[in-house]
Amino acid sequence: MGHGPQDVHGGVDPHLGRYAARTAGMTASEIRALFAVASRPEVVSLAGGMPNLAALPLRDIAAQTARIIAEDGLAALQYASAQGLPELREQICEVMALEGVRGHPDDVVVTVGSQMGLDLVARLFCDPGDVVLAEGPSYVGALGSFATYQAQVVHVAMDEHGLVPDRLRAALRQARNAGRRVKMLYTIPNFHNPSGVTLAVGRRAEILEICRAYGVLVVEDNPYGLLGFDGRTYPALHSLDPENVVYLGSFSKTFAPGLRVGWVLAPRAVREKLVLAAESATLCPPTLNQMVVSRHLATQDWRGQIDAFRETYRERRDAMLRALEDHLPPGCTWTEPDGGFYVWVRVPEGVDTRAMLPRAVDARVAYASGTGFYTNGLGGRRMRLSYCYPPPGRIREGVRRLAAVLEAEPALAPAFAGPAPRPVAGPRALAPEAV
Amino acid sequence: MGHGPQDVHGGVDPHLGRYAARTAGMTASEIRALFAVASRPEVVSLAGGMPNLAALPLRDIAAQTARIIAEDGLAALQYASAQGLPELREQICEVMALEGVRGHPDDVVVTVGSQMGLDLVARLFCDPGDVVLAEGPSYVGALGSFATYQAQVVHVAMDEHGLVPDRLRAALRQARNAGRRVKMLYTIPNFHNPSGVTLAVGRRAEILEICRAYGVLVVEDNPYGLLGFDGRTYPALHSLDPENVVYLGSFSKTFAPGLRVGWVLAPRAVREKLVLAAESATLCPPTLNQMVVSRHLATQDWRGQIDAFRETYRERRDAMLRALEDHLPPGCTWTEPDGGFYVWVRVPEGVDTRAMLPRAVDARVAYASGTGFYTNGLGGRRMRLSYCYPPPGRIREGVRRLAAVLEAEPALAPAFAGPAPRPVAGPRALAPEAV
Repeated sequence: MGHGPQDVHGGVDPHLGRYAARTAGMTASEIRALFAVASRPEVVSLAGGMPNLAALPLRDIAAQTARIIAEDGLAALQYASAQGLPELREQICEVMALEGVRGHPDDVVVTVGSQMGLDLVARLFCDPGDVVLAEGPSYVGALGSFATYQAQVVHVAMDEHGLVPDRLRAALRQARNAGRRVKMLYTIPNFHNPSGVTLAVGRRAEILEICRAYGVLVVEDNPYGLLGFDGRTYPALHSLDPENVVYLGSFSKTFAPGLRVGWVLAPRAVREKLVLAAESATLCPPTLNQMVVSRHLATQDWRGQIDAFRETYRERRDAMLRALEDHLPPGCTWTEPDGGFYVWVRVPEGVDTRAMLPRAVDARVAYASGTGFYTNGLGGRRMRLSYCYPPPGRIREGVRRLAAVLEAEPALAPAFAGPAPRPVAGPRALAPEAV
Repeated sequence: MGHGPQDVHGGVDPHLGRYAARTAGMTASEIRALFAVASRPEVVSLAGGMPNLAALPLRDIAAQTARIIAEDGLAALQYASAQGLPELREQICEVMALEGVRGHPDDVVVTVGSQMGLDLVARLFCDPGDVVLAEGPSYVGALGSFATYQAQVVHVAMDEHGLVPDRLRAALRQARNAGRRVKMLYTIPNFHNPSGVTLAVGRRAEILEICRAYGVLVVEDNPYGLLGFDGRTYPALHSLDPENVVYLGSFSKTFAPGLRVGWVLAPRAVREKLVLAAESATLCPPTLNQMVVSRHLATQDWRGQIDAFRETYRERRDAMLRALEDHLPPGCTWTEPDGGFYVWVRVPEGVDTRAMLPRAVDARVAYASGTGFYTNGLGGRRMRLSYCYPPPGRIREGVRRLAAVLEAEPALAPAFAGPAPRPVAGPRALAPEAV
């Protein structure tokens, strides 16, 4: 997509000498590049992260939205404050309280999805060459934002209990010894994207203490926290150290992503700068969308709605795990998520998930290759499978197709021929970062 | 707002050592800071740029929006492409064709208001220290975006026919001699914010040629182009040199700002990078909002709607100009806009519009001090008066109050006492940049 002097159409880009240095870090993510082909109806896409919206009461939302426009349209269709509507910011504090966060509405900034929150946080804190620590693997969109502001992401290992405190300490020590400036730890503690792992409660205070000791800000990204399959929630990192944590939230997974309503909760001084940055980015978030979310929270059984989402995703998670057990060839292992959208799969040695992807799409199944979730080239033996969007039958069919593709890979085919004992497939692919 | 080591609450910001260098350029605009106080109902605000939405058919928009959600909600409430919906991008090309633009839908990127377009363009092109040329005065929001990416704005003089080609040449020569890298000319050719002036048609090709000769990209910001009071449109700069112009458009002034739907039309190689930057900024623009605008364009008499807006604003412009003639003290001059939202007023020597503003607010009238529209400290003898939002009676009352405040300024009061002949007040304050 025009990264070199030759653009895709073969011509030389006449603007080439004009771009800012930061554009060198802006590359099309592998995952997005895949979406076009993966969205063909005959392909079972286990690649995307689109929520399943079938459970939404569309007629109610339509009626509520119509009332907002008919009765209060002069406000809903007008500019509003860059920080977001006060009533919505109050409601956001009530939502966050479910995970122990005690935030003040004055310290909430409404954003155009939490992706905009990520962009603003990177904008405020990242100078070129700064280091950002993030789980290995980590969320593609966050990696993109950090690249935009020319920060270098250093991945920190996870295990089945999430980020490993000792590895965090080691990464911080190493960066300090190398004279690097570490600006923040970016982390998704609950039902992690892409690994599906949750940070153990017992590790949370320790990780916060380490970051305090090294003078590093914590950015907590929590889009899935209310989607735990047993209905359990975990104490937000923000609840444990509000002065050193910037919290990112979103209505994309608990209500509707197409409205693009997310938020940032930040310590006061940071929040003041965030509002200025937000104003420079979009003037203000869409007013109508904020009112639709606010009305939904005020008048609907939104917790019941989240329960319904949770039930759907639990059923799909179950279908995914059962299909993996039933079909994946020996040598594959995977995580067992307690919430959220994703399973992280390790494939046998010799299989390259990025190279295999075109063969999978030919076999009418798509996944996200693990390499997209690292900035350091790791992930070639990993893939992310999402169970959020396809119904259970499609999930099973997708995994069946994927298993057939895996079994046909040259690295595996001989193993089936030979008599040697083979490793057993199973859950809990530990240490998601180690290839 | 926390720009120094002490934040507004008197405490030291514990995050102070962590911010990126670019945050030094993020300051609260004088104009936004004023909005809170200016929005008190007893104050006549001639300060803001809020469109008057009273002419919108709210019940129709409510019904259309409800149908979109009820019938197509699974798409409207879901993520969509970062570039924007294909159907809307086609319609945007039809809108732009009214001003002679021949754009392809593939080269349109839908943004969260054209402010986001500005942010993305600055992000793509501005390295720290780069020079951006802009009219003097220029749009506050653009100055903020350039500051965010640490570019330096150099103002180029305007007269009553807009940007002065010779001054543009001189600025480019001077920058070249100083070894500065000029990245772009940012210009609002039609019904300029804040000056109200339109770039003469005869100057357009010349300005484009100058920019070509110096290898400088042109960024054309055109939110008001369809709001000419005699119904006349002007050839867009893009129509004259599509390969060297990035065009920014918006539905905020012709439909509804609260939906935050704007767009960028860019040469293909630039557009490819814009889509990546947009994805990193917000993942995608709100889907519902795009569908609401698209439905409006497809099913409503949107040109008739723009005619109605135009008629409203023409009536208010007339009320404003008449009130200025009737009330402003001698020595004041002003521009006479043929479209858009703003009149640019020059006050007599000795009056400082920024210092006077609190006295004006005490007298229950607000305006935007000229200093906010420059990055170089000019504008102290200028103010922007907007006639877009208050009805004609309020505009007259506001100008009466403003005139009384001006007459009470120490610099003017003695003049009224003395017998010396006084300069006459009148329209056409030329050379808006010269203080």
